[in-house]
Amino acid sequence: MNKQTTLSALRFTYPNSKKIYIQGSQSDIQVGMREIQISDSLFPSYIAYDTSGVFSDSNRLIQWEEGLPKIRESWIAARHDTQVISKNAEQTTVRRGIDGKNTGQMYYAKQGIITPEMEYVAIRENQQIQALFEKHPGLQSKLQKSLGEKAVHKFITSDFVRQEIAAGRAVLLSNINHPEMEPMIIGSAFLVKINANIGHSSIDSNLEQEIAKSVWATGWGADTVMDLSTGKDIATTRNAIIRNAPVPIGTVPIYEALEKVDGIAENLSWEVYRDTLIEQAEQGVDYFTIHAGIKEKNILAAAERTTGIVSRGGAIMANWCLHHKKENFLYSHFDDICDIMQTYGVTFSLGDGMRPGSIADANDFSQIAELKVLGELTTHAWKRNIQVMIEGPGHIPLHRVKENAILANELCNNAPFYTLGPITTDIAPAYDHITSAIGAAHIGWHNTSMLCYVTPKEHLGLPNKDDVREGVITYKLTAHIADLAKQNLAASVRDYLLSRARFDFRWNDQFNLSLDPEKAKYFHDLTLPKESAKEAQFCSMCGPKFCSMRLSQSLKEQAKTKY
Amino acid sequence: MNKQTTLSALRFTYPNSKKIYIQGSQSDIQVGMREIQISDSLFPSYIAYDTSGVFSDSNRLIQWEEGLPKIRESWIAARHDTQVISKNAEQTTVRRGIDGKNTGQMYYAKQGIITPEMEYVAIRENQQIQALFEKHPGLQSKLQKSLGEKAVHKFITSDFVRQEIAAGRAVLLSNINHPEMEPMIIGSAFLVKINANIGHSSIDSNLEQEIAKSVWATGWGADTVMDLSTGKDIATTRNAIIRNAPVPIGTVPIYEALEKVDGIAENLSWEVYRDTLIEQAEQGVDYFTIHAGIKEKNILAAAERTTGIVSRGGAIMANWCLHHKKENFLYSHFDDICDIMQTYGVTFSLGDGMRPGSIADANDFSQIAELKVLGELTTHAWKRNIQVMIEGPGHIPLHRVKENAILANELCNNAPFYTLGPITTDIAPAYDHITSAIGAAHIGWHNTSMLCYVTPKEHLGLPNKDDVREGVITYKLTAHIADLAKQNLAASVRDYLLSRARFDFRWNDQFNLSLDPEKAKYFHDLTLPKESAKEAQFCSMCGPKFCSMRLSQSLKEQAKTKY
Repeated sequence: MNKQTTLSALRFTYPNSKKIYIQGSQSDIQVGMREIQISDSLFPSYIAYDTSGVFSDSNRLIQWEEGLPKIRESWIAARHDTQVISKNAEQTTVRRGIDGKNTGQMYYAKQGIITPEMEYVAIRENQQIQALFEKHPGLQSKLQKSLGEKAVHKFITSDFVRQEIAAGRAVLLSNINHPEMEPMIIGSAFLVKINANIGHSSIDSNLEQEIAKSVWATGWGADTVMDLSTGKDIATTRNAIIRNAPVPIGTVPIYEALEKVDGIAENLSWEVYRDTLIEQAEQGVDYFTIHAGIKEKNILAAAERTTGIVSRGGAIMANWCLHHKKENFLYSHFDDICDIMQTYGVTFSLGDGMRPGSIADANDFSQIAELKVLGELTTHAWKRNIQVMIEGPGHIPLHRVKENAILANELCNNAPFYTLGPITTDIAPAYDHITSAIGAAHIGWHNTSMLCYVTPKEHLGLPNKDDVREGVITYKLTAHIADLAKQNLAASVRDYLLSRARFDFRWNDQFNLSLDPEKAKYFHDLTLPKESAKEAQFCSMCGPKFCSMRLSQSLKEQAKTKY
Repeated sequence: MNKQTTLSALRFTYPNSKKIYIQGSQSDIQVGMREIQISDSLFPSYIAYDTSGVFSDSNRLIQWEEGLPKIRESWIAARHDTQVISKNAEQTTVRRGIDGKNTGQMYYAKQGIITPEMEYVAIRENQQIQALFEKHPGLQSKLQKSLGEKAVHKFITSDFVRQEIAAGRAVLLSNINHPEMEPMIIGSAFLVKINANIGHSSIDSNLEQEIAKSVWATGWGADTVMDLSTGKDIATTRNAIIRNAPVPIGTVPIYEALEKVDGIAENLSWEVYRDTLIEQAEQGVDYFTIHAGIKEKNILAAAERTTGIVSRGGAIMANWCLHHKKENFLYSHFDDICDIMQTYGVTFSLGDGMRPGSIADANDFSQIAELKVLGELTTHAWKRNIQVMIEGPGHIPLHRVKENAILANELCNNAPFYTLGPITTDIAPAYDHITSAIGAAHIGWHNTSMLCYVTPKEHLGLPNKDDVREGVITYKLTAHIADLAKQNLAASVRDYLLSRARFDFRWNDQFNLSLDPEKAKYFHDLTLPKESAKEAQFCSMCGPKFCSMRLSQSLKEQAKTKY
């Protein structure tokens, strides 16, 4: 496996895989996927959903200073609703909607327009599974046996994508200043997505590390990346990340605004914040987390909590409100914010500033009061034809996870729910990728659209590259578990092919179909490193005599001959 | 942290912790617990359920050749229903029931006898939480807010333990030849337990490694340990493990029986198996996994599966049946097996030889047909007053996990369910501790009594010490998540205390209350190693200006002064 994520040559490849492109209705719609070659006599390959962009295309070499190819440039230009307001060496072309015109996908969707972005995501979601099912007529009914009768394969059409966006049930993140981005869709009718947080704090990290982390995160499978940098050089770091990001990028703009006022929350103002939003929108940030749901009257209840306010943005705004005895300017200026969002095609991610930070605070007044405000803001944004996601908790005991999903859908009219975890116990710092994955699989099953990863370093420190990998893979498997639980028949094909490989002792196929081939192979090779062991009918777990798979194969033989 | 698990001095200690003993109604009932000292002004300590035995008692030093103190010896002798049949330097005293008399806890429970073992587990389950709630009258209602109205604290009495055992809803594992064992209880009315598998295969490992692994597993929190050794010197390894095990030990006796016939399944016989059972029972194995649910008529259906039979014991017996065209001798000799079980007080763990090994095989005919047979065998064993656990799947998609728990309870009359995982996707080898923890938390919530851990090496190779730790901690947190989901109010106290420490920036308290203090501290110290950072009001994740907890504390101050 070749993973040169040094900055001179960013690359992320998987073993036995090749990058393929599926063409859409026009030649510049080229949807990148990863074809994994296997030696299964019935299924010679599997086509995986792929978030790694051209970093995994062996025919391309990316110099980070130049950034990625601008695949959406021509689509954006062809809509004739934007103007180029600046163009310079450092930041490439900067566009805005002509006269503040709405350039977001919901606006187009409501007019019945199927954009190239919508077509792209339809092709991407389908992963060529339809063709596979057509080639193997018995496969669907076989997989249905285990997933249940309701398990069906839903072929996604471009118009279905459009409808879901128009109804607000899905969002297609797409800042007009992020033409490098490969379109993807977030909504409960689609594959469950994951987000990886990166970004430096004032204590640690630097520009080069962050770019490498972003490429690394998308290589392993992050569907979106949030740059949560605080400290120095936020803008420079972010620009380098966006120019090299094949996935949508999100931020929490209040962090940069706070840096501008030297970290003193009470010195924040609408004007400082507004300017920050515009600067970030012009760089190409695809979605903003905005803590507009914090209302002055609801803040004091949080002082009674075990762990107060654990959202950074939430805590900042609460302090601001208490100091000034004024309403949260993110709430009072929400319509002004809408103006900026529509001009650049940015999507709202309405922040859960009051998410519970401990089991003891789960589902309390502060949390639910904020969620109601988010519902109200969603309705407002939709009237302005702007896309919205709703951010969710936090720390929640497992038996109350489902009611959070239901409540969010009810109060926010089925806007895509985007949750951090939830973390289902407080007692396992250093293992919170797992405590949260348990909650995340459950909430993903109950129609949460995107899961924000948690790394092993949560509550303890800034994640490094290993933590990012552990977090991304943990959430990839979690999202997949949710897809299976949602009875998505197409998703179960990969499980089926991997299990066939496992049963046939095709060790390399088993590794290569897995989410982390490198680690699976490494673990296997710790005890049986020889190449010959890759076809051995056992592993070190049981040894040859006790391998149930081997015994079971002999059973198949006996069953044939004796009965 | 001092973890000398070299064999000359086995030791396992936690930081800021001291071993305490709670005395029962007689002076030789001394229930070991771990008191964690913290600097919380309201709560100076927390008393944790403790599986590490005297290895964590700083006043004791264990030489592995001598083994642990025999705390149950006098209780067993006092019942006057056993006879000493041999006594030798190597294997200590060997007992059996006089004239094959039943020496198991169900037999006593049904007669209304409360054994010292039952009293011990009642004290142990309560963890002194009652005293804590009495001292802090508001605590229960505070915790109830997040866990829900139905969340109550159930004080466990010795007679309640007896009733649960008599009804078959709980088992108290207790071979009369394992007097070193600290009694514990497995049942849906009690704390969710976890099992760790250890044992060498013919490919790897050795005696000393296995003893160290066993001590290591119980130190980190395993409630029972299964020795799944295959290969050479099984009996010697097992004896050393049992003599040093403060927790119940389980085995799958068919493995040793197969070694005796040189690994050729068709050469197995009832006689070889019977002798193996007796030998292991005389060594002190507390529970046997017995694959008696495999019936000849149901075997062939498994040949249609994607992954056949993945249980080693199941595959061995299926091969035997097909070869001899005879009924499984574990089934046909079940009553003879009962004779042995009762004579030594061994508990059945009825094996799921037909557990699905892939998502594609979940909940299929083979699995359910076997479960029905297990129900029939449970009824039979109960008539003989012998305790039973039911083993469960396997690979199951998340949305079908609950129906497995319900089905097992229905078909097997609420005998304690003991599950491996379930693993909820096949596509993440190297991360199957997580894919399975997601299923395990869910099935634990739905009244599964014990969860068998899965390590990151599952499907790939034999786990080493690091894997055992990762597996045990993953399942400790999973069991705890299930306890919270079952609205066990007492369980949530630890979450509450840890979150208080987190909010107060008592970093060391946060580490010490966690399941793995060493790793939590290590992760924190990677970026902020200085001792002064242990009281700093931030960590490297956000840095000082952006720490929501710090901002939130200032909010509390402002709320006090301004409103």
